[in-house]
Amino acid sequence: MMNFLLVAVGGFFGAILRAVISKRLNHTYRFVHFGTFAVNMLGSFTLGILVNMHLHTTANLILCIGFLGAFTTFSTFKLESLTLVHAKQWKQFLLYSILTYSVGLSFAFAGFWMAKVYLS
Amino acid sequence: MMNFLLVAVGGFFGAILRAVISKRLNHTYRFVHFGTFAVNMLGSFTLGILVNMHLHTTANLILCIGFLGAFTTFSTFKLESLTLVHAKQWKQFLLYSILTYSVGLSFAFAGFWMAKVYLS
Repeated sequence: MMNFLLVAVGGFFGAILRAVISKRLNHTYRFVHFGTFAVNMLGSFTLGILVNMHLHTTANLILCIGFLGAFTTFSTFKLESLTLVHAKQWKQFLLYSILTYSVGLSFAFAGFWMAKVYLS
Repeated sequence: MMNFLLVAVGGFFGAILRAVISKRLNHTYRFVHFGTFAVNMLGSFTLGILVNMHLHTTANLILCIGFLGAFTTFSTFKLESLTLVHAKQWKQFLLYSILTYSVGLSFAFAGFWMAKVYLS
């Protein structure tokens, strides 16, 4: 029970920060979903780092599962992709899908690698 | 300020429910990340429905941006994918990536379409 509460507290703050960044960055540039893209990349990079830091269970529940789990989002990304399909913006759709997928994995790897090299 | 608080309350409960489902389903079947997959699909489907229900702003902030944003996760999905690459489990990695991407979009579309047909 206590564990789920720690996750929830992390989720509380992760969701706020996501909303703040998304509101600031979405619809600001030509890449209209840049806010969602940015939180997903930043979150993957940070989780890559934290995984290699072998955190205490409490910190892991708050930061990795709660905060970063809620800071990044999959459903919004999919709905935004669907909206691009709906508007027949195929180029934006493909770019958003491919970039999110490949850059997301690269950012997770970069964080993981940096923490392995510089922190251990 | 109030808006961000609504998002955070949704995030609090979304993160808990994700943790409960992931804990129950991850590492239970041969598809080891089935829990994360399930929350991402379920969240995309539900968001597809809710988007078509034209919710009041308060409900939208709590449910769509807060709850479903935090219920689904991108960073965990990327880290799990990276772990599969690290373990050279290429088949699992490809399957997890392709399924999450294609089924996620299909589920978002299915929810969107169902709400459009049956609720409007």
